[in-house]
Amino acid sequence: MFSSNTLEYPNFAFDITHSDLTSAARLGLLKTPHGTIETPNFIFVGTKASVKNLHPYQVKDAGADIILANTYHLLIPPGPEKIKKMGGLHKFMKWDGPMLTDSGGYQIFSMGLGSDADEIKGRGKKRPPSLIRIDEEKGAFFRSYKNGEVLCLSPETSMDVQRKLGADLIVQMDECTPYHAERDYTARSMVMSHKWGDRSLTAFEKTHDGTQGVYGVVQGGVYRDLREESCDYTAARPFFGTAVGGCLGGTKVHFYEIVSWTVGRLHPARPVHLLGIGKIEDIFECVKMGMDTFDCVTPTREARHGRALLKGVPKGYINLMNARFKDDDTPLDEASPHMASHLYSKAYIHHLLKADEMLAHQILSQHNVAVISQLMREIRAAIKLGTLDSLRKDWLPD
Amino acid sequence: MFSSNTLEYPNFAFDITHSDLTSAARLGLLKTPHGTIETPNFIFVGTKASVKNLHPYQVKDAGADIILANTYHLLIPPGPEKIKKMGGLHKFMKWDGPMLTDSGGYQIFSMGLGSDADEIKGRGKKRPPSLIRIDEEKGAFFRSYKNGEVLCLSPETSMDVQRKLGADLIVQMDECTPYHAERDYTARSMVMSHKWGDRSLTAFEKTHDGTQGVYGVVQGGVYRDLREESCDYTAARPFFGTAVGGCLGGTKVHFYEIVSWTVGRLHPARPVHLLGIGKIEDIFECVKMGMDTFDCVTPTREARHGRALLKGVPKGYINLMNARFKDDDTPLDEASPHMASHLYSKAYIHHLLKADEMLAHQILSQHNVAVISQLMREIRAAIKLGTLDSLRKDWLPD
Repeated sequence: MFSSNTLEYPNFAFDITHSDLTSAARLGLLKTPHGTIETPNFIFVGTKASVKNLHPYQVKDAGADIILANTYHLLIPPGPEKIKKMGGLHKFMKWDGPMLTDSGGYQIFSMGLGSDADEIKGRGKKRPPSLIRIDEEKGAFFRSYKNGEVLCLSPETSMDVQRKLGADLIVQMDECTPYHAERDYTARSMVMSHKWGDRSLTAFEKTHDGTQGVYGVVQGGVYRDLREESCDYTAARPFFGTAVGGCLGGTKVHFYEIVSWTVGRLHPARPVHLLGIGKIEDIFECVKMGMDTFDCVTPTREARHGRALLKGVPKGYINLMNARFKDDDTPLDEASPHMASHLYSKAYIHHLLKADEMLAHQILSQHNVAVISQLMREIRAAIKLGTLDSLRKDWLPD
Repeated sequence: MFSSNTLEYPNFAFDITHSDLTSAARLGLLKTPHGTIETPNFIFVGTKASVKNLHPYQVKDAGADIILANTYHLLIPPGPEKIKKMGGLHKFMKWDGPMLTDSGGYQIFSMGLGSDADEIKGRGKKRPPSLIRIDEEKGAFFRSYKNGEVLCLSPETSMDVQRKLGADLIVQMDECTPYHAERDYTARSMVMSHKWGDRSLTAFEKTHDGTQGVYGVVQGGVYRDLREESCDYTAARPFFGTAVGGCLGGTKVHFYEIVSWTVGRLHPARPVHLLGIGKIEDIFECVKMGMDTFDCVTPTREARHGRALLKGVPKGYINLMNARFKDDDTPLDEASPHMASHLYSKAYIHHLLKADEMLAHQILSQHNVAVISQLMREIRAAIKLGTLDSLRKDWLPD
């Protein structure tokens, strides 16, 4: 069915400029029509075409190089057709750097009434009520989280929507299997996702104009042979990049083990994106296994919970809601060159949080984006110097 | 009792640089230890030491010259003692321009369960439950809106608190009488407010160090002879400035009439602040009656309701929640030099509001502060040129 092994991405490139001697970590340059970014890098999440609480130029000022938006959340009004009319996501939201959209699949399969990620990540919730059924031919039927309307996303419609949204990097449609899925289900689902990957490529090729590069997705749940089969599948198809997705195990150890199975089996010349992962310790571990980009809502979500990510503190963050900060007039992060990080005292931010003043969320969102951007810059420098392990200790002391 | 007719404000000045020929409008330079501002001007409200949704530097970038914080809201933690320890409000919140605090009285007498201003402005609500009793000697007893604790504010404690907060301009303690108060009650209350004014001055003088200037308040409700008596009272005392407060009538016409009674009776050399008033049409009317500064939550509150203030549109604003903006890809305010006003399309801001994205409130708050700052600049230029009436028509077409 699929035969386009000749797909080319003339406006894209991924150049590996340095490889670590003792791990699979590597430095790269990822070129897109909206600019070139250094990898490893972090893709900040702007779900509904807005990185929460921040102007796009604040996101950039804080050091971010690339952001993403979620296809699922942009299916509802204004919708992809109108965003296309208004010049695509970049123009609509005024972000002129590189951008990624996901396929929409992750949210369809994971959006429950509570946290989106609980189920996929094995935190024990059931299939959310929004998913109605999955039909290999027609796609996934689900209810809109906004108005209950029944929608359907197939490989073809996902590509069509992502084409209209116009991000640089887009992702094939896949089923994201939950933690508790049996091996049989996971295996059948993976095969379907591979077929959906082929259909995504076919659909992509029809309107391919050099403005977008498409990622294939590695599924296979918690089963090593399936993961390896899925790596081989993506490597054999003309995707521009590879995304590692789906359930990554219920514990850290398991999660790292699953990612480790992909080392050496992913297409070696393509950028690898680890979907939905972005805690500091996870970034360190997964960079060493050759992951080039990460995305996670952590920086802005933690901000809304009063948490400031910081280098060198236990757990990697402090919670400014904590009463111990109420008289602390030292700056949040004195050494930071970023204004939002060094301008205000911890006591002031504590006060803003206690007083329900939205400025707190803005300050902490800017700060957290700045910290993660700084982390990625330091990780890149450390890969070059071969000092990743000591950098990790600086960031996350025992 | 009070005898300090010699109070001086060496670090303060108010120079009237131009007076309109056909109205009481005037141009002035109001000098404070944190800078000199041109008048007429608008004091943006940062109730709890934060202009809602905005960094102080964003407030300044949008053109604001001066802000205020509410003493009432700063009585609760961190509280005035700690704010003093941290260097006062300016340092605490990182605003280095001129600043005003009110006495706390307005909120004590007006804070209900709903809108703070309904009762004072004659919108028909009863005395709020938070006020327990008023005792001329001891002050006003009320319940904290935060934890129900019984607090008391007297002229002396209000001065003490405002001294600790450290704003440049501070306000005497007064009772703010409601719209429905009888003449007898209003008269007795006004006399008490005058005594409180004298006690405020006495308390102020004890720690007077040249860093603050105190405003007396004109009360007297809706009764002309009382308003005049109150004007005479403030003019005869060594206040630095005059604030016009209290109930200003239930209708626009009545409100303007009450303000008109003060024309020619206020101390002519002092800056006059109209407390809590700041709609565009009210600013035009009251500038013509000699009001020099205004304050109102309008710019940021309207932003939170999706409203963008604009020059030359009916009602003075557009509501971006309105469906007619969903496909409107023209900028919010193309001609504005302010980034938040011209960067985004109306359709994008509409989308952010519909999606409950906080960035909408930030954009509209910045925009509204920019618009009101521009209004004040244009009003000052028009006073000089004698073109206030035609400027008003440009802003508010019939």
